[in-house]
Amino acid sequence: MTRQNSFQAIEWTDSGLLLLDQRCLPHEQHYLCLQDAVSVAEAIRDMVVRGAPAIGITAAYAVVLSARQHLEHNPDNWQARVQQDVKKLAAARPTAVNLVWALQRMQQRLARSEAEPAACLLEEARQIHEADIEANHRMGGYGANLINKGDSVLTHCNAGALATGGYGTALGVIRSAWAAGKLVNVYAGETRPWLQGARLTAWELLQDDIPVTLVTDSASAFLMQGGKVQWVITGADRVAANGDVINKIGTYSLALACRYHGVKMMVAAPLSTLDMAMPDGQQVAIEQRPTDEILKFSGHALAAAGATAWNPVFDVTPASLVDYLVTEAGIVAAPDREKLAELHDQAPVGHSSSQNS
Amino acid sequence: MTRQNSFQAIEWTDSGLLLLDQRCLPHEQHYLCLQDAVSVAEAIRDMVVRGAPAIGITAAYAVVLSARQHLEHNPDNWQARVQQDVKKLAAARPTAVNLVWALQRMQQRLARSEAEPAACLLEEARQIHEADIEANHRMGGYGANLINKGDSVLTHCNAGALATGGYGTALGVIRSAWAAGKLVNVYAGETRPWLQGARLTAWELLQDDIPVTLVTDSASAFLMQGGKVQWVITGADRVAANGDVINKIGTYSLALACRYHGVKMMVAAPLSTLDMAMPDGQQVAIEQRPTDEILKFSGHALAAAGATAWNPVFDVTPASLVDYLVTEAGIVAAPDREKLAELHDQAPVGHSSSQNS
Repeated sequence: MTRQNSFQAIEWTDSGLLLLDQRCLPHEQHYLCLQDAVSVAEAIRDMVVRGAPAIGITAAYAVVLSARQHLEHNPDNWQARVQQDVKKLAAARPTAVNLVWALQRMQQRLARSEAEPAACLLEEARQIHEADIEANHRMGGYGANLINKGDSVLTHCNAGALATGGYGTALGVIRSAWAAGKLVNVYAGETRPWLQGARLTAWELLQDDIPVTLVTDSASAFLMQGGKVQWVITGADRVAANGDVINKIGTYSLALACRYHGVKMMVAAPLSTLDMAMPDGQQVAIEQRPTDEILKFSGHALAAAGATAWNPVFDVTPASLVDYLVTEAGIVAAPDREKLAELHDQAPVGHSSSQNS
Repeated sequence: MTRQNSFQAIEWTDSGLLLLDQRCLPHEQHYLCLQDAVSVAEAIRDMVVRGAPAIGITAAYAVVLSARQHLEHNPDNWQARVQQDVKKLAAARPTAVNLVWALQRMQQRLARSEAEPAACLLEEARQIHEADIEANHRMGGYGANLINKGDSVLTHCNAGALATGGYGTALGVIRSAWAAGKLVNVYAGETRPWLQGARLTAWELLQDDIPVTLVTDSASAFLMQGGKVQWVITGADRVAANGDVINKIGTYSLALACRYHGVKMMVAAPLSTLDMAMPDGQQVAIEQRPTDEILKFSGHALAAAGATAWNPVFDVTPASLVDYLVTEAGIVAAPDREKLAELHDQAPVGHSSSQNS
């Protein structure tokens, strides 16, 4: 398995599924070792692990945990029990499509009724994990090819090794471009309210000795006005059939500022993020997280008592504002419905879109 | 004196200048009582008091403190000593023009060599303070007239009673529109890094029983995409002669999103904010504040160790993105150089622009 980042956020071990607790970063590298699918569903909901591809991979391993547990304790109806766990896992976060995509792959494998089901499911989960890392390396190469020597980039949230099987989508492109000596400056938006940029992206890039400068999310447009970046590069939690991109709140604002300044907007996302069953982005369920993410910090009140908050954690960027969609199958410039249908038809088996809504 | 907000951020008393320490809000209403100009300069620099009109008024009172002190202790060269203090005050924050404008008014009064200089200077400072409150009430009325019944607004940073002599600029408009029963929802951007929106605007509006919903700065464009606001209303730290608006970082990003969505952008600022000596916004010195405002929170590290930050605390919104500039002299729609020259020519004496850069 190719691993070019210096840590592992998701790791299958004989003792269970090891997850780097991203709530504790950057101050502490604390791992949770989970033995059952319900605990994994909670870990996904509580953001021990986050990032669309990473939660898909995590859920796939959780199905293995579920099968092991129920084969042992409920041999007569273990498959029905696994299906119950799959439902819980699918409901853990609503917006990213990779979660449901990975669970569907695991269910297809489960349906084969093989001799050693747990071992077969583990094989499937490992394949999902390794294919994701491989996809990220390909995307890294494709994306880096678009970047000119001397360019600077801004990224948002964390679309890195922490958010994927490894190497990262947006940060995969940045890693590849950095390794090629192309980048002058890497800026990261701090990404309120959860501060994925300040806490995770900065940590991850510094682990790999890539210098990073944080900006408040609201400073990005002014950064562009000053000509300080030529690219905004993000991941995606879901790409609709028309090319609309659902990603971390703030992505849309960045895309608007990009278009105004002629800064290029690149979205790097594996084919597992593509949802051909979703006609456009306006129909995707946008997760609203607890208002305390805005009103409090580390349990302490930030805002005036009595204030309420609106906390959608994703937004919808229309395809028309995306200059390049980079997948492991190649680059789609100015993505639209026709180009995405073509991309989807070329995609390898197992990378078909999900049917969820 | 008209005071329609329920607290006082700046108050002249016999014991000295009383400032509500805005660093402690919303959790604590702590006041500092300052007796000399150097302490006031420090308080301005350290953001005990902030907001363009408020720091102008504060500096004016500081000149009174300076004159009292030096008349008593250095009667032979007290005026020279006051001039030294004026320099320190002027250097406390670089971007807002009202600070220098107020100091110039105080210097003009000082130059008159009157019989009771300290009393005369106090009279001048009080006039500046009262005229600001009066201006805010006028702006409130003008701005509210533009708003339709059933509209909702988003504001940024704190351009309220805390940032002015009282009543507020942007929040003055919101107070007036709320009192007129026009507003459905008031949203406030939290305003990273210093969280003026979450800490100050929310507190101030709730003091006056105006409900407020906080959003992360990066969610504003998505709020507009959903049709949830018809107006963005902000204050200004300086308005250049061509109508470019220098205001809290993030204002520019909001203005871009407003234009894209057909949301109207209103800037409410007294004439003391207008700088006719500044041809356009690109030439204004934009204050960079310590990176720890981004990297730390309440003294604790937020970001990964080793990360740096870029922390400009103001940005430049081109006049072309401003729909309405509201001053105490009336409304300027689609402000430009010609309209601002006309506005300036009509302005009462004492509201002329500064010569600083």
